[in-house]
Parts: sequence; structure tokens; C-alpha cells
Amino acid sequence: MHDFLFQIQRSSSTSLQSQIRQVLVSAILAGQLPADERLPSTREMAKTLGVSRNTVLQAYLCLVDDGYLLARDRSGYYVNGEIKQVGLEAPLNQADVRAQAQQGVNAKGMNWRSKFRVQPAHQHNIQKPSRWHDYPYPFNYGQIDHKHFPIAEWRDCSRQGLGTKWLDVWTKDAQDQDDPMLVEQIRTRLLPRRGILASTDEILITMGAQNALYLLASLLVTDHTTVGFEEPGYPDARNIFDLKTKRMLPISVDEQGMVVDSRLDMCDMVFVTPSHQFPTTVTMTRGRREALMAKAIERSMIIIEDDYEFEANYLNQPTPALKSMDRGGNVIYVGSLSKSFFPGLRIGFLVGPREVIDEARALRRLMVRHPPCNNQRTSALFLSLGHHDALLHRLNRIYRSRWQEMGHALKKHMPNSSRAPSFGGSCYWVRGPDGLDANQLAIDALKEGIVLEPGGIFFCTPGAPKNYFRLGFSSIEQQQIEPGIRLLAQIIDRQTNATAAAPQYERSGP
Amino acid sequence: MHDFLFQIQRSSSTSLQSQIRQVLVSAILAGQLPADERLPSTREMAKTLGVSRNTVLQAYLCLVDDGYLLARDRSGYYVNGEIKQVGLEAPLNQADVRAQAQQGVNAKGMNWRSKFRVQPAHQHNIQKPSRWHDYPYPFNYGQIDHKHFPIAEWRDCSRQGLGTKWLDVWTKDAQDQDDPMLVEQIRTRLLPRRGILASTDEILITMGAQNALYLLASLLVTDHTTVGFEEPGYPDARNIFDLKTKRMLPISVDEQGMVVDSRLDMCDMVFVTPSHQFPTTVTMTRGRREALMAKAIERSMIIIEDDYEFEANYLNQPTPALKSMDRGGNVIYVGSLSKSFFPGLRIGFLVGPREVIDEARALRRLMVRHPPCNNQRTSALFLSLGHHDALLHRLNRIYRSRWQEMGHALKKHMPNSSRAPSFGGSCYWVRGPDGLDANQLAIDALKEGIVLEPGGIFFCTPGAPKNYFRLGFSSIEQQQIEPGIRLLAQIIDRQTNATAAAPQYERSGP
Repeated sequence: MHDFLFQIQRSSSTSLQSQIRQVLVSAILAGQLPADERLPSTREMAKTLGVSRNTVLQAYLCLVDDGYLLARDRSGYYVNGEIKQVGLEAPLNQADVRAQAQQGVNAKGMNWRSKFRVQPAHQHNIQKPSRWHDYPYPFNYGQIDHKHFPIAEWRDCSRQGLGTKWLDVWTKDAQDQDDPMLVEQIRTRLLPRRGILASTDEILITMGAQNALYLLASLLVTDHTTVGFEEPGYPDARNIFDLKTKRMLPISVDEQGMVVDSRLDMCDMVFVTPSHQFPTTVTMTRGRREALMAKAIERSMIIIEDDYEFEANYLNQPTPALKSMDRGGNVIYVGSLSKSFFPGLRIGFLVGPREVIDEARALRRLMVRHPPCNNQRTSALFLSLGHHDALLHRLNRIYRSRWQEMGHALKKHMPNSSRAPSFGGSCYWVRGPDGLDANQLAIDALKEGIVLEPGGIFFCTPGAPKNYFRLGFSSIEQQQIEPGIRLLAQIIDRQTNATAAAPQYERSGP
Repeated sequence: MHDFLFQIQRSSSTSLQSQIRQVLVSAILAGQLPADERLPSTREMAKTLGVSRNTVLQAYLCLVDDGYLLARDRSGYYVNGEIKQVGLEAPLNQADVRAQAQQGVNAKGMNWRSKFRVQPAHQHNIQKPSRWHDYPYPFNYGQIDHKHFPIAEWRDCSRQGLGTKWLDVWTKDAQDQDDPMLVEQIRTRLLPRRGILASTDEILITMGAQNALYLLASLLVTDHTTVGFEEPGYPDARNIFDLKTKRMLPISVDEQGMVVDSRLDMCDMVFVTPSHQFPTTVTMTRGRREALMAKAIERSMIIIEDDYEFEANYLNQPTPALKSMDRGGNVIYVGSLSKSFFPGLRIGFLVGPREVIDEARALRRLMVRHPPCNNQRTSALFLSLGHHDALLHRLNRIYRSRWQEMGHALKKHMPNSSRAPSFGGSCYWVRGPDGLDANQLAIDALKEGIVLEPGGIFFCTPGAPKNYFRLGFSSIEQQQIEPGIRLLAQIIDRQTNATAAAPQYERSGP
């Protein structure tokens, strides 16, 4: 036992006591500390590790409580031989283990390719560098700026949500039910601001907005369904519908939002992001909204409204949701809390006619049963204590300022990059010079510390323009914006001048 | 303002300060406290509520930080008129609101019924009384006994998981990625005990075992796929497959587990619960396992193994998973942490060939993106600190004792209820007398305080027996078992004697 050494990391966010437990438990389960082995005394262990004797004692006592160790009077602490019986004494004979290891679990007997009904891994989707915070100019999109997130408040709500009083709420199998406190917060606090009055049975909690779309597509789209889809539009949503039907009809977007014309007559369903169109950020005008609603009623068309970044308007008040104009019951509304809380949370919701919600609830039961109860309760508390409103208030102030800075910098350094008018959101949709290849630009810019998203992925029609890109401002510091845009403008100039000089593309890359 | 009264609940698990904040925020947002209204002084408020002045002060200061209140020197605290601008100033004109309320969101313009591609709300599934803890004899299944769950340890892991160090881990949009710490815990701690060696890219975290099954069915089942399914079997899984294909072939289960015979020759895929068959708890014998594997290799058949309650063996050591015998790469393994942590959590995992995991990961991205990052990290810590092993150890001891008590009581009070041999699990599968209608029994028993699950829901073939029922023992106290079984036996006697006397069924009920 005396050669049993381990490291304690003082800088770790795991407590010293926890670290001691963790290492001992692993060693016991892995058999490195065999049954009935005597552990070093608390005094010896404390000295070896350079921690207080009490820390070691607490760790040992916990392990006695949990059955890993036995305390023998005046003799010390011993490994409990019985603890491993919970697991599998002899998982396999060793020859089997070796044979399996050599062969790999992924044996080649099966032709899996022929078994797939769908192959979503072959779809195109947004690629994001995961280490964006390592770059000086992270114009990436959809990740939060930690500095402005109310971490202490979220932790406090989490702690309260895990309270003994609510034990049943967060531990139970809720089957197909939602946390009533969260539904009530959404119903009375969020929806009225969007102009929506709904009853509790017209609301369903989902695993984020995307799960809401997946549920709707599974429920309502067959291979005969024609779905109208914004062009450019949201690739994840397009990929979801694409699994269910090949009849996707691109509907163009102009400076008033989605164009409402005879193309919609061919659609059974239309997906639309009226608050801030994804990715152009255009807000759909009142006139367009009325025309779309009239068309939907006339043709019994389903509208799926993704009420995307509704709160992020910097010049005007937010426009009410399309759902608030829904006289015919055609609109199903999709909202998200992941965006405004934090993206890792995955909480969203659906609002729609009762019969749609009933079926969506039954389908969700099969798909995931329900979003985790602890997160539903924490979210409900975060809303009810006003933290969410405070966060929106704060982010709105910060984003408005960044949005203005972005606007000035783009005007100054890329005066010719004509843009659709932007009233908000958390990004700019930029059209570069005609010769620009935004995919190549993203590669070149990353080398100089700029993260951006090329726009090609948002289009689905062949021959779509290659010179669009998206610049987010939810992650980048205010003071980095102007220098970043200036640098980006230089890279674009370099690339387009090179292209003009050598019209034969000689670069490698996509 | 002086008539602005609210209640403080001292017994609430929400802190007094939080309660004050919560009520003020609601009142501000609902307009009950208009802009620029002066709040009562901290002294007045403290007196009215009977709390300390400091509690009120802290609540006010928090609300100032968040922008709800403004502090004016020497004058007091005022409602900030700007806070509501984050939301929608005038959501709708009031006439619109009234019209919408009268009409209901669920307007009748659309014929939704004709729009559904599937109607899962029409499927049959297990119905459970939600208030089972109010009954003296809760023989229900699948909910945990709070007394034995390590609440403090889970809270501690949650607190650590929400640490600032790991902020990026729990807040970020992980897109299609899993928490590497959790994958590593599953790979090195859980799977070896089941005899499974897997690499990280052969593992996918899911929203519980059920989400894993949903992913597999979506990926691998078309309407031409024939799926072999245990009879009796797991209704949720059957309902999932039923959404994708009508070719479900019931495969009977005897005292050795699923019967392996020529019926399987018609199957492209088979769903099996070898550790403890659901609902009979039978452990599949070694011989049957070998026969099933041979059949799968011979016919290129996919096996979906739900490794259900593997840890709950009270007489023998757990048998290794079928996946550990998988030489041809035919088996996809489904595991759950929701069952052994707590059901509300929804964490499970898939183990399979890399190409299957790749597609399942892409599909999961569309369906839910990823299980919530905070819960993944908390689970990883809970595993790594040994809390999960300690919990299994403890539950095993408790369940073994309840299982024995159940066995004795059943033998004593229902000597004729022949049962398939049970080696573990958390329930008994009981065959009542031939004339018994278990649906009626469940209704009658509930009136006398006994919760049980009638067995009809587990069968899918027409004319299936009606006299089976399931008695769980994960929720019921040890000392309630014997009296509960005794009472149940009396109710059964009463029912079957009544039936014998009056063979014409005259009862109402299902």
C-alpha cells in the first residue's frame, strides 16, 4: 500500500476530499486495492498528500458509509471485500476478453450500410470550431458570453430545485407530464409578451426548439407532404424535414421577410422564422404576416413558426408572434429557452391546438419520455425569480451596443458589402464582393484569428451565391469588433484582388 | 402601495428573500406595480412581513442589480420603468386579446385529424396512479424509494458540476458531442462489468434507454422490417417500433427467456431483454443466448439488447451482457442510468458498431442535439466519486430482503399463483387464478390501498391471458409487504369466487 501514490490537484474544482474518494474508489473497483487491504492511517495519508488529517478522515468515513471501507477498532480502515459483488466478479474469461479486444466490438460480420433507413450522418450541417474562445475575434454564433450569464443565480435555482421538499418533482418518472410550475411560467410570463394567450393543455415542454421541430415533422410530415422553407434558411430544421420528405420547396426571403406568392399554393406546410429570419435577421413585415395568414387559412396550410430571437430588437419594440394573429388555428409556435438561458440546457416549448399537443405529448413520451425534471424545475425557478428577465435586460443592453459597433465597423471597412436591413438578432448577415468564396474566406480568416460562418450552408438551391457569410456578436468582446472587422476586410480584399488577377481558381480547399 | 399585500410561507423551500423577489417581480411585470412607484421602505416591509430588515434589503438590492428597481438617494426604492421594455409594451390591442380568448387558440378552422402522419396518443400504454405514495401498499413499479437515494451526494455533484471551472462544459451548445467524462465513466466503469469492451466512438449518450430505442427504430426500421418482440414484453418499446412498422412478430417467453426457434427466421431485427426479461424478470439462459447469437449471425439479424436491471440479481452473480458474446457485430446494446440514478434524470446510452453510432449521433443531433450538459457532467461525477456503486450496493441489500419477503408472502397467501422462476429484478410477475380479471383486480385493490399493475398491457396477441399482474417492490416498505399480499389474496379470492358463482360477467369496468 505504501507505493500507492496519487496526485491531488489543488487547482481542481473538485474538492480535496472528493479527489481522495475518487481515487480510492477507482483503485478498489479496479482491484488495485484488494479486499481486506489496510489503508494508510489518516495521519500517514495526510502527510503524504499534504492535506489536513481531517480531510482524509472525512473521505474515509464517507467510504465507510458507502460500504467501500470497513473501520476496525484501533486497527484502521480496510477495503471491504463485499463491495465488488455489486458488479460482476468475473466479467468474462480472459481469453474471451482478449479475443474481443483484438477483433473489436465493431466486427465486420454485418453489412450495416444496407440496414439504414435514413443516413443523417451524410447531411450537411454547420461546422463550428469548438475552441472559439481561443481566437481573438470570435464572430461565431449561438454560444454565450460567460461573463454576462448569471451563474450564481442559476446555481441557486438549481440548489433550490434539488430541495428535499421537491424530491418527488425532480426524481420521479413523470411519464408524459411536464413540470406544472414551468408550464405556468411560460404561459403567464413569456407567452403574453408575444401576444399569445394559451391554456396549459396547449403547451408542451420540449428538449429545445429543435426537438419541437423534430416532434412536429414526425407527427405531420409524410413523403407526400410539400414543405415551404425559407431560402436561405436554418440547416438543422431543413435536415429534420429532409428525413421525412423530399418535397422541400425553397421560398425566397427579401428585406420584408419570406416572400408570400403563388409558390406557397403548392405547400401543405411552411416553416418560417418571422421575428428574426434565420440567418438574415430580417423581421417579417406586418403586411407579409397578414398575407401569409390569409394564404394559410385559404389553403388549410400548416404554419410552423420558430419564434427565433424574438427578444433581440434594438430599434423597435418586438413584433408580436404570428401565432397571436392565428384565427384559423393554423399556426404551431416553437419557442426556446436554451437560447436565452444557456445552449447546453436544451429546454424549449410548443404552443398549438390541443389535439396537436396531445399527439406531440404522446410522441415525446416515446422519444424521450420528458425533459429532465431537475432542469424543468430549475428553469421554472429561474423564470419566477425574475432572473431571466434581468438577463434579457442586461443582454439587450450589451448586444445593442455591440450591434451598433458592428454596424459602424462594417460601414467603415466594408462599405460595399450591401446588407439586408438588420434590426436586431445576435449576428449580421453580410454579402461580400461578387467574386468572394466565403468557404475559403472562413479558412483564411481563422488563420488570422477570426471565427466566422460561411453562408453557403444556409442555401439549398444549386448555384446559390457563395459570397455570403454570418458574423455573430454574442461571444466577441466589444473592443475586439472594430479591429476584427478591419482585419477581415483586408483578408477579403486580398482574396478578391487575387481572384481578379488570376481568374482561374488555383486554390485548394472547398 | 400600502394595500399591496403578499404572503410569505415560512415552510416553503424557497428562501424568504427569494419569495420577496418573486412576488415583486411578478407584480412589476404584470403592471400591478407601475413604473416609478415608490416601494415601502425596508423597515415598513420588514414589519409587515415579519421578517428581518436585512432580508428585505437584500431582496431590494438584488432587484436593483437586475434593473427592476432604482435606488434614489435618501428617497427609497422605485420601480424602474425601463424594465418592461425588454418585453412587449402592448402585446395586442385589448379587443384582439378578448377575441382570441373567447375563440381559444384551438380554433376550429383546421381539420388536424387529417394531418397526422402517426397518432401515438391512440396507443395503449401503462397507466400508473401518480399519487402512489398516498397508498399503504404501493406495489407499483419503476419509481424510487426516496429514503435510499443519496440526495446529498447528488446535490454535491450537481454543485461541483456547475462550477465556474466547467462553465464551458455545462453552458455550451455541444452540437453532436457527448461529455467526454461521462463517456469515460461508462466505458471504464460500467461496461467492463457487463463484459463489454468498447472504444469511445462506439458509445453514444441518450435521453434514457427509451430515447436509445427511438433512435434505433428511426434509423433501422422501415415498414418492410419485421421485428421480433418478446410476448409478453415492454409496451413503450413495442409502441416505438409500431410507429415504424406493422410487421411485429410476437416471440414467446418461457422460464429460460425468449424462445429461439424458426419464428426468428422471419425477423430482420429482434428486441430482447436478456438480463431480466420485461415484465417476467426471467434471466435468459446461456444456451438460449448462444442459440440466439448463432441465429443472428446466420441470418444477418440485428439484435437490440435492452440490458434491463442487470445489476439486480439476488441469488447469482449477474450474467454478462449478450453484447459480450457478439462476434459478428450484430448486437446493439442499450443501457440506462435513469433507472439506477433516478427516473426523472433521463440519461442512458447506446453501445454499437462505430458506423451505427455515427448515424445515431447525427440523428440525435436533429432530435434533441444532446442530453443536457449539466446533467451529463453531474452523472459523470456521481459515477466517478463512487456514489453510484454505493447506491447499487445499498439498493441490492434492501431489494434482496424485500424480494425474499415478497417470495415468502406470495408462497404463504397465494400458494397456487404459479410463477416463472424469478432471480431478481424489482418486481414479481404473478399469474392469478384462471378466472381472474387483473384489470378489475387493479381497480378493486386500489380501493383498499393496494397499487398493482395488471398484466394485459404487456401482451399484444389477441386472446392473451387476463390473469397476470405485476407487483413491484422498489417503492413499498418491507413491513408493508406481507400485510399487502395477504389483503390482495383476499381480494382475489373474493373476485374469483364471485366469478365462479356468477359466471356471467356482470361487473362494469374494462
